[in-house]
Amino acid sequence: MTSLRFRFKAFETEAFITEELPAGEAVWRAKPSRALLVCDRNTEYLARRMAAGEAPAFCVLPPGEGAKTWGSVENILRAAREAGLGRDGLFVGCGGGVVSDLAAFSASVYMRGTELRLISTSLLGMVDAALGGKTGFDLFGIKNLAGTFYPASGVFAPVEALASLPEREWRSGMAELIKTALLDESGEMPALLRENREWLLSPAAACGKGSPVGGIIAGAMELKGRIVEEDPEERGSRRALLNLGHTFGHALESAAGLGVLSHGEAVAWGLARSADLGLRRGVLPEGRAEEIREMLAFWGYETRSPHPLLRDPGAFMAALGGDKKRKAGKNVFIVPGRRGAEALPLDLADSGEKKLIESIVFGT
Amino acid sequence: MTSLRFRFKAFETEAFITEELPAGEAVWRAKPSRALLVCDRNTEYLARRMAAGEAPAFCVLPPGEGAKTWGSVENILRAAREAGLGRDGLFVGCGGGVVSDLAAFSASVYMRGTELRLISTSLLGMVDAALGGKTGFDLFGIKNLAGTFYPASGVFAPVEALASLPEREWRSGMAELIKTALLDESGEMPALLRENREWLLSPAAACGKGSPVGGIIAGAMELKGRIVEEDPEERGSRRALLNLGHTFGHALESAAGLGVLSHGEAVAWGLARSADLGLRRGVLPEGRAEEIREMLAFWGYETRSPHPLLRDPGAFMAALGGDKKRKAGKNVFIVPGRRGAEALPLDLADSGEKKLIESIVFGT
Repeated sequence: MTSLRFRFKAFETEAFITEELPAGEAVWRAKPSRALLVCDRNTEYLARRMAAGEAPAFCVLPPGEGAKTWGSVENILRAAREAGLGRDGLFVGCGGGVVSDLAAFSASVYMRGTELRLISTSLLGMVDAALGGKTGFDLFGIKNLAGTFYPASGVFAPVEALASLPEREWRSGMAELIKTALLDESGEMPALLRENREWLLSPAAACGKGSPVGGIIAGAMELKGRIVEEDPEERGSRRALLNLGHTFGHALESAAGLGVLSHGEAVAWGLARSADLGLRRGVLPEGRAEEIREMLAFWGYETRSPHPLLRDPGAFMAALGGDKKRKAGKNVFIVPGRRGAEALPLDLADSGEKKLIESIVFGT
Repeated sequence: MTSLRFRFKAFETEAFITEELPAGEAVWRAKPSRALLVCDRNTEYLARRMAAGEAPAFCVLPPGEGAKTWGSVENILRAAREAGLGRDGLFVGCGGGVVSDLAAFSASVYMRGTELRLISTSLLGMVDAALGGKTGFDLFGIKNLAGTFYPASGVFAPVEALASLPEREWRSGMAELIKTALLDESGEMPALLRENREWLLSPAAACGKGSPVGGIIAGAMELKGRIVEEDPEERGSRRALLNLGHTFGHALESAAGLGVLSHGEAVAWGLARSADLGLRRGVLPEGRAEEIREMLAFWGYETRSPHPLLRDPGAFMAALGGDKKRKAGKNVFIVPGRRGAEALPLDLADSGEKKLIESIVFGT
């Protein structure tokens, strides 16, 4: 077991990367009657196994991004209320990114804030969603339009939970793992991914005997966590680096219709576009751009421009214009640099900068 | 104009107590296009007057506690989205406690947190709801079951806005003003209320020429703000003092049916019960108890036990058992002491302590 400690503003998070699912008592520390376990139908068997003989309350959500609604939040809050949870109760999310985001948002607003612990069961959740305090749900067709900043006191990443992950979800998380690795200024993480890429090709490989994947996940959590520690609520420019590939990716996700592409598929395409932009602006050397292309190709992501599902250029540009991370009218594109990544603010009201983005996105 | 500065954890709040409504530009500081003004139908005329020629977006809610729902929050978030507010936008709440709580909750979750300023137009809002960062809405029949901690960057208390306040709402706010005064360990605030009680008898008197009410409001905001500064998120025992009268009051509000009694009517009744409890436990001297009774009688609150609207003892005791502020199975009753107030944790599972509470509440 590897354990890591982070401090995000006033919050402390302890992360545990383990081979096996934690025992219930390690998660709720002898207070099962005050705990609400939130999971989805796919992760319910893991949650029940963890709870074993003990009897915390359960709230089982439908699986998938479509469940990321206020209705799900309300169901979680109702279950907490019916279970009699007080402000000293505990919310435990057991699932992937959607369950993490929903359980965490619910914990952050129940009686103005109740303790939260997350058991992350997907690669995306482990290397991204469960750590760092971003919570939220979708509203009016916009991803995470409503959310809070509310880190979990504990994040568990049990590698065995990955065994049953569908291939497509594996690849979705893999894109975030590649993104995080690209932020490593030492260059060690991208090298580690390349050296161990056969282990990282599927859930079955990752959970095989002697797999180094637990260590790689711990490395990605450490990288992300340290960046978040420097700028927990994304007030400065540091945490924004984690949006590498996301400005392009989120706009593609919206333009293709939420839920059509997986988050990681959109991010992988966005990473390719960010590399294009870095090249065009002269901040990314061709050699590193080629390495990025090779990694994206190895995991089989669609990286062509325009993306085959991007049939409506107007919708894409409108989604870019509505991006949460716009600052003073400019879109902030994070692009890979000589090492790590850097921010390029571009003004889409400027015809030259708009044309640059259009040529990168639509291949015109 | 009196201005006060507070620091609540990472948040800074500046409060302005003025005679007149502030000018729009003083509130949104030259950025009306990025501002969303939230008001209700009763305060819309004030909001429109403040906006004058400028054109921020508006969201007008129905008035009253019945509007404190997720539906209202969704309407506010939709208006913000349609107005194109980004994370660097501004939410301005203009109204009483309900509008403050809703605008503040919405600002706290829109894109994970957008700047908030509040123009408080009711006595309750000025001396209580607008300052200190508690936000929320009602859910499953429970007051503020969902909420966040999210202080405004600016709180405006323009005394002229009180002129059109209905008498019943005036008395609702007056109960919170009395409560806050009772927390003053120096004893100055209760004396000030008694000396100026004719000015505090109605909105018309309070807004009369030469009225000292602005200064009294500033004093109450200072008292409350300093207590909140010591314990912003009510993790310790300090902020809990502000719940003086509220454990009894909230349970009465719930048992009578949300919206039947005004918040202040319930709190005033709760203050009387807290004084009873303080007396019975020997922490409140009879002389001070008599002073408290006299104040409550002067403003004409119903303080008999049982309360005439309290027909269902079971519902009352169940509401006490579901109180947000319970700690480790105990209800924390804040009672007036020799000076200021103190906390008395009581265990309702203990038959003696339960009987004590029942005899105080039901007069048995």
